[in-house]
Amino acid sequence: MRVLIVGGTGTIGAAVTALLSSRHEVITAGRTRGDLRVDIESEDTIAALYERAGHLDAVVCAAGQGPFGPLAELTATDYRFGLDSKLMGQVNLVRLGLDRVADGGSFTLTSGVLAHRPTPGSAGVSIVNAGIEAFTRAAALELPRGLRINAVSPPWVSETLVAMGRDGSAGLPAAEVAKAYAASVEGRGTGEVIEP
Amino acid sequence: MRVLIVGGTGTIGAAVTALLSSRHEVITAGRTRGDLRVDIESEDTIAALYERAGHLDAVVCAAGQGPFGPLAELTATDYRFGLDSKLMGQVNLVRLGLDRVADGGSFTLTSGVLAHRPTPGSAGVSIVNAGIEAFTRAAALELPRGLRINAVSPPWVSETLVAMGRDGSAGLPAAEVAKAYAASVEGRGTGEVIEP
Repeated sequence: MRVLIVGGTGTIGAAVTALLSSRHEVITAGRTRGDLRVDIESEDTIAALYERAGHLDAVVCAAGQGPFGPLAELTATDYRFGLDSKLMGQVNLVRLGLDRVADGGSFTLTSGVLAHRPTPGSAGVSIVNAGIEAFTRAAALELPRGLRINAVSPPWVSETLVAMGRDGSAGLPAAEVAKAYAASVEGRGTGEVIEP
Repeated sequence: MRVLIVGGTGTIGAAVTALLSSRHEVITAGRTRGDLRVDIESEDTIAALYERAGHLDAVVCAAGQGPFGPLAELTATDYRFGLDSKLMGQVNLVRLGLDRVADGGSFTLTSGVLAHRPTPGSAGVSIVNAGIEAFTRAAALELPRGLRINAVSPPWVSETLVAMGRDGSAGLPAAEVAKAYAASVEGRGTGEVIEP
């Protein structure tokens, strides 16, 4: 398969790229790194990405950010940032890719454990992640040409915890998380939220 | 209790107003009707509403809309409409009310069955409803002064189905749905998604 991985150089994206590259043709895209350029907050750059990417059997997105911060301090602008980035960025990647991905192909998006298991400070991120999961379930009912869509809901990733100065063993290694993305790309499921 | 009901003249809001008025002091607010004016898409009008409403023990929101339409036709602007209206409108009602509702008071928001049981055409609405539920679970962890927050997830409402020319018996009467709002306002639960 020819697989586009948006956010392919981030912690999770790089692990997905490493795993899928062994058996598929992988193209990575990112704001500043990877084979192609895209800012998922910009519909124009998503459209340009699809123009340049050519034939695609699968699109994986491990890009986008959400606002983490205390409920009493999050502003409407903070919430908007997450809605524009990780939520609508991924929705637009699907919207603009509906006519671009080959028959029977797939989209694999990224939500996260905070969708259903919030922590103090996660209100903005929890909204975004739950929105992605709801979009995945709903969009699966309407995708044309045998297209599939799933979301991977990663737990805390070991490498991310270590980068934050915390105990990596409390998380799951990115290489393990990557297997959930591979299951979506290579499997037959649709409308699923996959927990690694 | 002194209860503010935003959207208090809509199908569900009017039923909640009727039920709670029998045992509480109810103030209704809406864009064009009710005791006070508010457009939940505007933070300024929400702030002005709280200024005018005075002492409040509970805030109920049954206002806000989401975009219903085929996945292939929903534009980014359509999604944005739902995010600005029913999602961020309710989030901002809580944000701006954090210092306004009395100790031990409550917020009761509205999500909907499409959050977890989508239908073709519901992608935009499903995102919004799931976002409200995630916000409710997350915000409950951080509310100060014993404040509570819950979301009611209404099924299709009989009166709405009849207005659409469909079979009302396939839905739940608004008066039944209203009992879930009363349970949130008068109960002790927080962080809950209540299905009438």
